[in-house]
Amino acid sequence: MENPFTDAYFMKKALQEAETAFEKGEIPVGAVIVIDNKVIARSHNLTEMLNDVTAHAEMQAITSAANFIGGKYLKGCTLYVTLEPCQMCAGALYWSQISKVVFGASDEQRGFQKLGTQLHPKTQVVKGVLAQEAADLMVRFFASKRP
Amino acid sequence: MENPFTDAYFMKKALQEAETAFEKGEIPVGAVIVIDNKVIARSHNLTEMLNDVTAHAEMQAITSAANFIGGKYLKGCTLYVTLEPCQMCAGALYWSQISKVVFGASDEQRGFQKLGTQLHPKTQVVKGVLAQEAADLMVRFFASKRP
Repeated sequence: MENPFTDAYFMKKALQEAETAFEKGEIPVGAVIVIDNKVIARSHNLTEMLNDVTAHAEMQAITSAANFIGGKYLKGCTLYVTLEPCQMCAGALYWSQISKVVFGASDEQRGFQKLGTQLHPKTQVVKGVLAQEAADLMVRFFASKRP
Repeated sequence: MENPFTDAYFMKKALQEAETAFEKGEIPVGAVIVIDNKVIARSHNLTEMLNDVTAHAEMQAITSAANFIGGKYLKGCTLYVTLEPCQMCAGALYWSQISKVVFGASDEQRGFQKLGTQLHPKTQVVKGVLAQEAADLMVRFFASKRP
């Protein structure tokens, strides 16, 4: 039997979170953190609702997963996030020593890869998973905000 | 009369926060955020107590100051922090558009300046304020942890 727990499988859950953000008027980015094929944290961007620039989906997911694990290091965990992390979130991922980061759409302007933010040397990065779906959601969101 | 509200004046308050972190067994970093010579947020590193890599002094101060202001942008605010911010905290400061960042001791390994993390173009940076005091506290902390 084929393994159902692919990167796309979990990215779909992150996309559902992004959809929830969209419905709340938040920039639609969603994230889940997975260990042993089990989702232990799910979150979406809440910067507007919380009036807090630190309330990115990834930051909340890191805090939530650490809480679930009962320790601050996310070894053995994978983050799925619909958009490439920014400097802040990549910096938090560095400290978490997370094992794997999978993102959807690239952020050519503010993504950590262009800006050269360091992840932990042990962190594996996979990009482009359901990127079109994530990008479409962003385009649709910003189009809806235009007067 | 001389202006009492110097950078050193507020950095002393950040150092008091760092002392509190030390007493709790946390890496001793403290921060305050100031607007119009008034302290609106004070915090210290709580990564151990909260089991959360995102609980740096600066991150908590940014969230707290935004809560005080009722808006997520920290224009007109100054952050005083005893140690040079890391990638994560500098990335959060970027999003906050804070007007000024004053730090004490430099972090040659993990500080944002060496790692090239971008702050907002409008953010002014001052470094080295009471740097020796901040560095002494760190040295004393790590010495106390050695077996």
